[in-house]
Amino acid sequence: MASLYFYYSAMNAGKSTTLLQSAHNYQERGMRCLLFAPRIDGRYGEGKITSRIGLQADARVFERDADLFASVRDDVAQQPLHCVLVDEAQFLSKTQVLQLTLVADELDVPVLCYGLRTDFRGEPFEGSQYLLAWADRLEEIKTICHTGRKATFNARLDGTGARVLEGAQIDVGHHYVAMSRKEFGLAEVQGYAPGAAPVSRGDDRAG
Amino acid sequence: MASLYFYYSAMNAGKSTTLLQSAHNYQERGMRCLLFAPRIDGRYGEGKITSRIGLQADARVFERDADLFASVRDDVAQQPLHCVLVDEAQFLSKTQVLQLTLVADELDVPVLCYGLRTDFRGEPFEGSQYLLAWADRLEEIKTICHTGRKATFNARLDGTGARVLEGAQIDVGHHYVAMSRKEFGLAEVQGYAPGAAPVSRGDDRAG
Amino acid sequence: MASLYFYYSAMNAGKSTTLLQSAHNYQERGMRCLLFAPRIDGRYGEGKITSRIGLQADARVFERDADLFASVRDDVAQQPLHCVLVDEAQFLSKTQVLQLTLVADELDVPVLCYGLRTDFRGEPFEGSQYLLAWADRLEEIKTICHTGRKATFNARLDGTGARVLEGAQIDVGHHYVAMSRKEFGLAEVQGYAPGAAPVSRGDDRAG
Amino acid sequence: MASLYFYYSAMNAGKSTTLLQSAHNYQERGMRCLLFAPRIDGRYGEGKITSRIGLQADARVFERDADLFASVRDDVAQQPLHCVLVDEAQFLSKTQVLQLTLVADELDVPVLCYGLRTDFRGEPFEGSQYLLAWADRLEEIKTICHTGRKATFNARLDGTGARVLEGAQIDVGHHYVAMSRKEFGLAEVQGYAPGAAPVSRGDDRAG
Repeated sequence: MASLYFYYSAMNAGKSTTLLQSAHNYQERGMRCLLFAPRIDGRYGEGKITSRIGLQADARVFERDADLFASVRDDVAQQPLHCVLVDEAQFLSKTQVLQLTLVADELDVPVLCYGLRTDFRGEPFEGSQYLLAWADRLEEIKTICHTGRKATFNARLDGTGARVLEGAQIDVGHHYVAMSRKEFGLAEVQGYAPGAAPVSRGDDRAG
Repeated sequence: MASLYFYYSAMNAGKSTTLLQSAHNYQERGMRCLLFAPRIDGRYGEGKITSRIGLQADARVFERDADLFASVRDDVAQQPLHCVLVDEAQFLSKTQVLQLTLVADELDVPVLCYGLRTDFRGEPFEGSQYLLAWADRLEEIKTICHTGRKATFNARLDGTGARVLEGAQIDVGHHYVAMSRKEFGLAEVQGYAPGAAPVSRGDDRAG
Repeated sequence: MASLYFYYSAMNAGKSTTLLQSAHNYQERGMRCLLFAPRIDGRYGEGKITSRIGLQADARVFERDADLFASVRDDVAQQPLHCVLVDEAQFLSKTQVLQLTLVADELDVPVLCYGLRTDFRGEPFEGSQYLLAWADRLEEIKTICHTGRKATFNARLDGTGARVLEGAQIDVGHHYVAMSRKEFGLAEVQGYAPGAAPVSRGDDRAG
Repeated sequence: MASLYFYYSAMNAGKSTTLLQSAHNYQERGMRCLLFAPRIDGRYGEGKITSRIGLQADARVFERDADLFASVRDDVAQQPLHCVLVDEAQFLSKTQVLQLTLVADELDVPVLCYGLRTDFRGEPFEGSQYLLAWADRLEEIKTICHTGRKATFNARLDGTGARVLEGAQIDVGHHYVAMSRKEFGLAEVQGYAPGAAPVSRGDDRAG
């Protein structure tokens, strides 16, 4: 049985490098991969997955309404396929995640998705929400905050390096920095102010 | 720096056993824990966390609008606290998950949450959705489907053992069985029928 | 393909509880398990696996020269078998670990081994050494030191609570306490005194 | 508290790529790393860590008797250091692994080691044996066998592609291929022939 993996991390942890290394490993062993990338990510030109440290490979660019199950099924009908890899998987729609579960469960092809968990306000992306809920394995690609703590959140910065808390979820015009949850200030960003009302003590039976 | 852990699994994997074992380990080393359980889970009486294999401990029962950060902060003000453990953590509200991130980040007390990822239709619970997005560590407590595959979904059954696909998200009157995603039939349950429209070939440059 | 798992941890982390919960999960789903325990561990009577928090199950006690592959092969020939669980797996011989790899690879039965990594001097046990080298999956059952750090080592204490650094590797007459590596003092226990000789600078080209 | 990590994998999984990506991440955040590589690995010239997909960085080459603790301690005395990365960590001596535990525990600098678990006969390397026993975290960098299974062993091949089972543990003149344990034939390589003698039935009380 093939599995669906979600390799999640903060920005700039090396997701694309890891994806390209995995694709390389398959190809080196004479196995065939399909690489997918959502159209939204126009950072380095269409049809390419590129890592910051200089690696690159061709990818099948898909729209938000593309049927990824049909696409892989048609491909498998023509020649053996050993792995599907999806970059920027946070941008998948819920239905596309469902399609990828079928690629694993019905076509028996392993699916490796790489993406962020949350956006610049700490909210899960649609694709991430369902990958976190439905994937067979959740694996973290670790990276660090400039404070030395593990970085798990993604802050949006403007051209002057100032923090931006407003705007659309997807916005490739800004710069992003990986931060620890504390440095990111999740509670503040989410508008939560620690309250004072304690839990009802009537039920307090803690040992 | 304390961390927030989400130990997730399907039904009947031994989440409460693992929670109770962890609490026992802390107490055995002379450290103090707080155990929390949401009121919704009345399966074995209020104020108790009970595992199917016969273990039990007292817990602080909380309502959906309880402020868990304030509760722990008030407790810590009075005596040292070494760990917070939360059973049935899928039933946490988004705000309560936020409060637990502050218990880790501001009070420096580790938080161990145990819960399901998804409900009987495969949809994430509110608490799980945000724990999956915000926890420092995601750890799976593995269990198996009767088919031998890993079980990751939870099917609702009626008294005759028939599958139930309708009803409220929380319903302790039914029986639940852990299943693999394939056995569960996620795509069908979600009303998805594999389509025929392939990905636009104009962008097809896969290697 | 079945896998060989090594669930490792320090003393008193709940290994046996986890083993018994897993066996329970299999049996509850109508699947059959074999439980094995080495004879050396006479703590709670022969033929039983017992956890500190009160759980217990029958086990097949084996000698150091027993052939675990033959034992499982003969069993499988008579009725379906879904899982093999091994307690105190650090006491396996190298050959027995090899036999368990064959249970997974040739008989296609999953093998779950639970044990310590290292003894009271920080040296790996024979069984652990080969499980760490050959298992398909290494999974940690976490526990804590009284200092709050993760405990990964096992200190031997005498009746007065004093540290013992001499003696046989296996000695059930002493008490053991799980400690962090720092608290355990691994380097001192191993007789290592930090030296002064720097790395040859002729090759120093670090970025 | 800093941790000692062992990132283990089979040959050609992308260990050096992962190491170089991690070093890049630290440097990008304005943090300083030390990279170490054992002299034995002369594959791409001394003083360099190079990945098969084209990345490269300078490294401090060390001899088998070098004192890595003293080396890092002297470095830290001069300027802040945020991470130590070690390539081909299977070639560390036991004492050097001990030194690296002190880098984490006494100098509070995280240590990331990358290496193989076992040699061409399935035997653990000295460095790997102690990293597997003493590291705070064991993390697998996964790769695949040409059969599609997970590859965890390393077969030695001669110039004609024929399997080689004899020779020194370290031999950079041969080619190596990552294989699953079954494909590798661990039991055969280790000279084990499945026996017939069953476990003594006198103790058979399995449930």
